[in-house]
Amino acid sequence: MKFTRFTLNNEHYTGVISEDTVNVVKGDLFSKWEYTGDTYKLDEVKLLAPLVPNQIIGIGANFVTNVKDLPTELPKIPVFFFKPTSSVIGPQDEIIIPDGIDEVKFESELAIIIGKEAKNISEAEVLDYVFGYTVGNDVTAPQFFHEAGHWTVGKAFDTFTPLGPVIETELDPFNVKVEAYLNGVEKQNSETDLMIVPIRKMISYLSNVMTLKPGDVILTGSPVGAEMVGEGNVIECKIEEIGTLRNSFVKVQKNVKSH
Amino acid sequence: MKFTRFTLNNEHYTGVISEDTVNVVKGDLFSKWEYTGDTYKLDEVKLLAPLVPNQIIGIGANFVTNVKDLPTELPKIPVFFFKPTSSVIGPQDEIIIPDGIDEVKFESELAIIIGKEAKNISEAEVLDYVFGYTVGNDVTAPQFFHEAGHWTVGKAFDTFTPLGPVIETELDPFNVKVEAYLNGVEKQNSETDLMIVPIRKMISYLSNVMTLKPGDVILTGSPVGAEMVGEGNVIECKIEEIGTLRNSFVKVQKNVKSH
Repeated sequence: MKFTRFTLNNEHYTGVISEDTVNVVKGDLFSKWEYTGDTYKLDEVKLLAPLVPNQIIGIGANFVTNVKDLPTELPKIPVFFFKPTSSVIGPQDEIIIPDGIDEVKFESELAIIIGKEAKNISEAEVLDYVFGYTVGNDVTAPQFFHEAGHWTVGKAFDTFTPLGPVIETELDPFNVKVEAYLNGVEKQNSETDLMIVPIRKMISYLSNVMTLKPGDVILTGSPVGAEMVGEGNVIECKIEEIGTLRNSFVKVQKNVKSH
Repeated sequence: MKFTRFTLNNEHYTGVISEDTVNVVKGDLFSKWEYTGDTYKLDEVKLLAPLVPNQIIGIGANFVTNVKDLPTELPKIPVFFFKPTSSVIGPQDEIIIPDGIDEVKFESELAIIIGKEAKNISEAEVLDYVFGYTVGNDVTAPQFFHEAGHWTVGKAFDTFTPLGPVIETELDPFNVKVEAYLNGVEKQNSETDLMIVPIRKMISYLSNVMTLKPGDVILTGSPVGAEMVGEGNVIECKIEEIGTLRNSFVKVQKNVKSH
């Protein structure tokens, strides 16, 4: 099932996509929802990020190039980071390069959406707590990393977390490829078995630190191949079974004060 | 005006405190609210964290010991970090020391609550976007800091962000002392003019990175004097004009599996 959020005539809707039609639903995706009976053609609406996340948690440097490069021992403390929910944009929005810099990095990722409150869950239980999957772009401005290692600012700018195009609820996350195409040229393309901290371990670990909540989004790391890019470029982050998340990069428009 | 959240007979309420009475209110504190007419005695209710934050943003290492130690030049990129909202507890809850460690650090802080959406605001405008102030304890387990500098896990555990006892809307944040008492003994006591990145600069900078939203909580840094403490200790974080946030430390109770 493919869930979407979209806007039409300044109203926001949630819907389920079937072929070229979106069927409007109401209620809470994580507990109880129903069809309203309204439908729209997909090409007459503007798609939004498929959810408003409760929180966004990312993991750093989580892919190797080849399976033989996977470490035999996992890191004791994975590199996790938070991104603010204000950084989320949808699949038809622009990524804004912040004032003072010319390039930012794209990072195509499998994004996992938690559906049920999860605390101290085992690796075996993890998928029972997952609502679905979308594609995320963990846009990053390493120019704003702190020299002592904090990534917070460099990952927090508005527009730095494109999500979409849909939430796919039926997906085998262990059998997909995470791809990125820059102006149509392949830059990233890795199976999820190249993750250093695999999905079950990642989410079980997190749930032993913090209570995960419905609507929490976990960005599971980006394959080798991410690059710095400037304005005018177009990035397509893709997981075939979910769809393509396409965004272009623009420079920030400075406010011009009138006299 | 002192806002509180509290629980009585398993119901949650928001209220305004006057002396020993809490007057129930309904609505959205950040837009439109009104008194319901119901009142309770303060000593018959259990106080909760005075808000459910939208997001929690902290700043690291932000106090000097003496005004003469303030740097002449501010850091180009301040050390900001996010804490998950799932880490929030109230003024009558216990701080749980995670499994595998014996001590955690208390950090008494002035917590600022944003009341209006704020993007690209100037230092002069900052206080127009502030709803009020509370006391925060940025509990930290440095044993879970990543060796490459990421603090995320060490600050993310459930119960690691006590907030309260109330939101004070009438406060001069430039003229208060941030104090902490461990089992009654003073450990922290600094005026806010010892902040390296002062409040106006901190919030203006953040708003130039990300859109701040109503309910965002900014922990403004902890005075010199924070210590590691173990179970059985009681920490009181205090700002006289707001109140005292008192929490005790307990060890995690491991689930014992039945046979």
